[in-house]
Amino acid sequence: MRISELARRGDVTTATVKYYLREGLLPPGALTSPTQAQYDESHVARLRLIRALLGPGSLTIAQAKGVIAVIDDPGDDMFEALGSAQQATVDEPDPVDTTAAERLVARAGWRVDPRSPELGQLARSLAAIDDAGFEIRDETWDAYLRSTRDIADAEIAGIPEDPSDALRYAVLGTILVEPVLLALRRLAHQHASGERYGT
Amino acid sequence: MRISELARRGDVTTATVKYYLREGLLPPGALTSPTQAQYDESHVARLRLIRALLGPGSLTIAQAKGVIAVIDDPGDDMFEALGSAQQATVDEPDPVDTTAAERLVARAGWRVDPRSPELGQLARSLAAIDDAGFEIRDETWDAYLRSTRDIADAEIAGIPEDPSDALRYAVLGTILVEPVLLALRRLAHQHASGERYGT
Repeated sequence: MRISELARRGDVTTATVKYYLREGLLPPGALTSPTQAQYDESHVARLRLIRALLGPGSLTIAQAKGVIAVIDDPGDDMFEALGSAQQATVDEPDPVDTTAAERLVARAGWRVDPRSPELGQLARSLAAIDDAGFEIRDETWDAYLRSTRDIADAEIAGIPEDPSDALRYAVLGTILVEPVLLALRRLAHQHASGERYGT
Repeated sequence: MRISELARRGDVTTATVKYYLREGLLPPGALTSPTQAQYDESHVARLRLIRALLGPGSLTIAQAKGVIAVIDDPGDDMFEALGSAQQATVDEPDPVDTTAAERLVARAGWRVDPRSPELGQLARSLAAIDDAGFEIRDETWDAYLRSTRDIADAEIAGIPEDPSDALRYAVLGTILVEPVLLALRRLAHQHASGERYGT
């Protein structure tokens, strides 16, 4: 298909497609003449991925490029590749004391890289909770650790075998599902609060 | 204490305290002379609440006012008050077709108000997932519903008896814990991926 058809299928303008091509987010089409290129279904799929990363995922162009580079060349260590793809979506936080965050992860018995930026994010959130004078019961912490593990286990078990599919799945899943989980938690609050306070 | 001491205790400038007073987020102190007011521990606690709402919670001044109004006057229907406080923290999304979101909530067996803005947010996130061509297995959906319910049950069970404490707890808990859950899920991914791909 031509660039105009690709743009239509991806629900973006031709100018946007050209921009993604220039930025290297979209691979070039097959040249059929010095001024004309042909695109195929793989370009449509890639365009949808880019839109998800830049739109609901709110990644920067640089972050999206990092994710796509790993998807295009996953190497043969899937654990390593998944880690690199995830890290590409995270802002590196300023250095922060991660002792409390590491303690929490140790309590759950999880093996994680102590240099993970997610530990910094967790540490920052724990500090904000502390700072607000907000206390969380042990039973509630246990529910957080148990539930996020339950979610992650189901998600990792669902990752497809093919390495590039697997990375696309993992990155999109991480990003697109976050707002779903937050909305579900708030809706579950409503239900549980109805049960406790009786309506 | 004087306003300068209150500002110091709250780790903000005196100008910020004056701004919160003008906006009605902080209740006025007790006048000890026509130009001087005294503040107490309740002002320090309120200041920490405001900081959490405007900082990590990223609420607007108007949203924070709405939350604080409910906390100050919860009325005698706790279910109603919790709902109002939560809604004050949510942007009303543009109207959207919530059929898929309602179906998901019905599958979980939750009773929620069909006008909840969270249903609109869920609907929007589901549409983004669809749009990206991303598919989620039934087992994974079950894990999402089970886990968010597990989390909400633990949280609602931990709400203190006193109505104003209860509202402060519920609002801070909803807002401050969101980034914690997202970071924990990503860390749990790392652990589960290490188990699946063996390191």
